[in-house]
Amino acid sequence: MQNAAAITAERRRSRGTGRGVEPHDKLKMDFTKLDGLVPAVIQDADSGEVLMVGFMNDTALAKTKETGFATFYSRSRQKLWTKGETSGNKLAVQQILIDCDDDTVLVKVKRMGDGNVCHTGERSCFFRELG
Amino acid sequence: MQNAAAITAERRRSRGTGRGVEPHDKLKMDFTKLDGLVPAVIQDADSGEVLMVGFMNDTALAKTKETGFATFYSRSRQKLWTKGETSGNKLAVQQILIDCDDDTVLVKVKRMGDGNVCHTGERSCFFRELG
Repeated sequence: MQNAAAITAERRRSRGTGRGVEPHDKLKMDFTKLDGLVPAVIQDADSGEVLMVGFMNDTALAKTKETGFATFYSRSRQKLWTKGETSGNKLAVQQILIDCDDDTVLVKVKRMGDGNVCHTGERSCFFRELG
Repeated sequence: MQNAAAITAERRRSRGTGRGVEPHDKLKMDFTKLDGLVPAVIQDADSGEVLMVGFMNDTALAKTKETGFATFYSRSRQKLWTKGETSGNKLAVQQILIDCDDDTVLVKVKRMGDGNVCHTGERSCFFRELG
């Protein structure tokens, strides 16, 4: 919720891009809230389906941007991993959006390989409904 | 990644519901990974647009289920808050999905009030593109 005034001013300045989102060159994420990590929501760019949620540190986010493939930081293994590096089911980045307080990213992707993102073999990790 | 075998077995048992997701009566979330919290991705049930990401503790998730309106735990204020409790822009829950390792929820909602979810006045918190 911080910097709401600055965000609003910036939003006003950059209106009219016609893209529905606002491009920024030097946006910095706030990695302080989760000990160096931000949640990364992975969404199918075509269908809009939410496929998975992982975490990125600054290196993972930079690698995601540089390589064009979604790369995360594994909390359990304490290292970077590129989704699909063994299965071939990589996630090709189409667009990266950040939220209003700079602590979450939304990555729109194209599914590669067999297109199944979840390690269980499902297309999405969200295949169960909370009863 | 834990319990993959159990998940797979459960998935096989409950196939054929015809709903595209698998209903469970007694799913328990894993709140241990983020000190009692899980990320909650809020998605427009109609358009598929990702609107915001918040955090829920067990009480917030229970209240979300009981009231039918998305309720979060504020890390900065250290208390529960129901989205739209002051603005009127509540988020009416249509469906709650959980991910394969029980540590993230996806809440599909209908936007109430003026339909703008972000505190900046945007419909979604993800209105900026990472340059």
